[in-house]
Amino acid sequence: MTPLRIDALQYCNWSREIFAQMRAGGLDAVHATIAYHEGFRETVDRITAWHRHFRDHADLIAPARNAAEIRAARASGRTAILFGAQNPQVIENDIGLVGILHQLGLSFMQLTYNNQSLLGTGWQEAEDTGLTRMGREVLAEMNRLGMIADLSHAGERTVLDAIAASGRPVAVTHANPRAWRDTGRNVSDRVMDALAESGGMLGFSLYPHHLAGGSECTRAAFCEMVARTAERMGVDRLGIGSDLCQGRPDSTVEWMRTGRWTHARSGAAFPKHQAWFRDNRDWPGLAEGLLGAGFNAEETGKILGGNWMGFFDANLGS
Amino acid sequence: MTPLRIDALQYCNWSREIFAQMRAGGLDAVHATIAYHEGFRETVDRITAWHRHFRDHADLIAPARNAAEIRAARASGRTAILFGAQNPQVIENDIGLVGILHQLGLSFMQLTYNNQSLLGTGWQEAEDTGLTRMGREVLAEMNRLGMIADLSHAGERTVLDAIAASGRPVAVTHANPRAWRDTGRNVSDRVMDALAESGGMLGFSLYPHHLAGGSECTRAAFCEMVARTAERMGVDRLGIGSDLCQGRPDSTVEWMRTGRWTHARSGAAFPKHQAWFRDNRDWPGLAEGLLGAGFNAEETGKILGGNWMGFFDANLGS
Repeated sequence: MTPLRIDALQYCNWSREIFAQMRAGGLDAVHATIAYHEGFRETVDRITAWHRHFRDHADLIAPARNAAEIRAARASGRTAILFGAQNPQVIENDIGLVGILHQLGLSFMQLTYNNQSLLGTGWQEAEDTGLTRMGREVLAEMNRLGMIADLSHAGERTVLDAIAASGRPVAVTHANPRAWRDTGRNVSDRVMDALAESGGMLGFSLYPHHLAGGSECTRAAFCEMVARTAERMGVDRLGIGSDLCQGRPDSTVEWMRTGRWTHARSGAAFPKHQAWFRDNRDWPGLAEGLLGAGFNAEETGKILGGNWMGFFDANLGS
Repeated sequence: MTPLRIDALQYCNWSREIFAQMRAGGLDAVHATIAYHEGFRETVDRITAWHRHFRDHADLIAPARNAAEIRAARASGRTAILFGAQNPQVIENDIGLVGILHQLGLSFMQLTYNNQSLLGTGWQEAEDTGLTRMGREVLAEMNRLGMIADLSHAGERTVLDAIAASGRPVAVTHANPRAWRDTGRNVSDRVMDALAESGGMLGFSLYPHHLAGGSECTRAAFCEMVARTAERMGVDRLGIGSDLCQGRPDSTVEWMRTGRWTHARSGAAFPKHQAWFRDNRDWPGLAEGLLGAGFNAEETGKILGGNWMGFFDANLGS
């Protein structure tokens, strides 16, 4: 049986072609972002759109809310799709919507996306006060339900606060070490250590802005970075969260950056992807790269999916 | 002609009886809170409910969005109603809704209510980082439109930040000096000085929790506090924002306190009102009290309405 392959973050322009590429790449599960700045009602629209995908492409994908459902999808030769929100705007100002969205299949929620949220501080604010009053309440509710707190776009203090306050380990689903590529979106040594000590997970990002050298980063350099991170965090705390945004127009990155919190437009465009990771079909190459960086087959299997599966087994509710 | 009387904050259980009491008390204008934790769509419901009040009680009240409309209501023997939101949840995460709500008659918006908002920090959070990225954008939009920024429930740094960043003076519509009654809801000397220097306004609150001695506070003690504040801030920067919540059940104060950001309930109840200010009919007594505290007739007129009118003339959009 092939080893498990799990991608802990994608936001593709979902289509039959992309789902077929997931199968070609051997993906067993994908955490799919369903919302950035959307409120509750809009998020329900995103979910109903996914229900159409599940009906139309039932031969390729299946919905999943926990490890057992991922295993069932794998057994049936399909890729499991788990829902996540990159921004807690999906619950608006209502802690009751955490449970409602969990019932609708939301497995991950970021506590903040770049900016200050009602729950905590994003990495782009000048200062970070950690979890708010509401943030502590919502995190406890997520712990209770088994919804994974994702801190990928949080400020450092908010990440550390969430790790300390959370009754379950948390995840940074898509980021790399800041020492490798110096951007506030990547994680500091302190965050990596706190994640490792608490049983949390770091998903390595393949988004060019998070890579040393950007689009020119080589597969060998990426895998070497993974090896150095394993020395610090241990191999069991590592996974992949590719941040693949395949097929999206540049208006999507504008939506991510400026949403509707400002009249200004960033003019941002998607960066060119490195040649060795253009889409889901390039996953086998990641395995080769990790083996080339000195990981053995078991370790490579853990990083490409086994570790996320163990984390999901322990931390996703039923 | 009687002097102007303006109350810069009420949240009564609005009814014909209460509107008639406004007339009996000689009120020319009332800033009426239309939303606490409501989102945009719910806020539109609150506005349509007010449209019913305006139809059903057109002999007593009239909608107003600026000083000219207050003068027109006064000329027709009616009390002008201005809309305000105590929490920026009314715009959700959308700066475009500032303009939409302004079109619908929203004249005031608090940047935060007790807790962290998307715009700034409320007084009940452990730490306050001032205006957020979105907060600066929204404040500029409010300045442009002529929607008054109200900082009554903000943390001190957020108030000072807003005063510094705002292109127009801001208001604390309902609070008293903290040195008189030590609660984070009341304003520090530093905030009073910054408000005064910037041409902002402080509306004195008659809510028992904001008064020295609470419900037992005497009218003389209240008016003496106003006189001491006038020495510090100048008589022109002062008004009344009674925070009158007449006829509301205790479930309303629970909604104010815990909204839907926590599963916990506070068990809070409305405090007993001081005997000398039970409802809008007691406004003439305020005039007597201020005269008794040493203000002359002109100064008393300014504090009870003239100052708010000047502030509205300068700062409310058309």
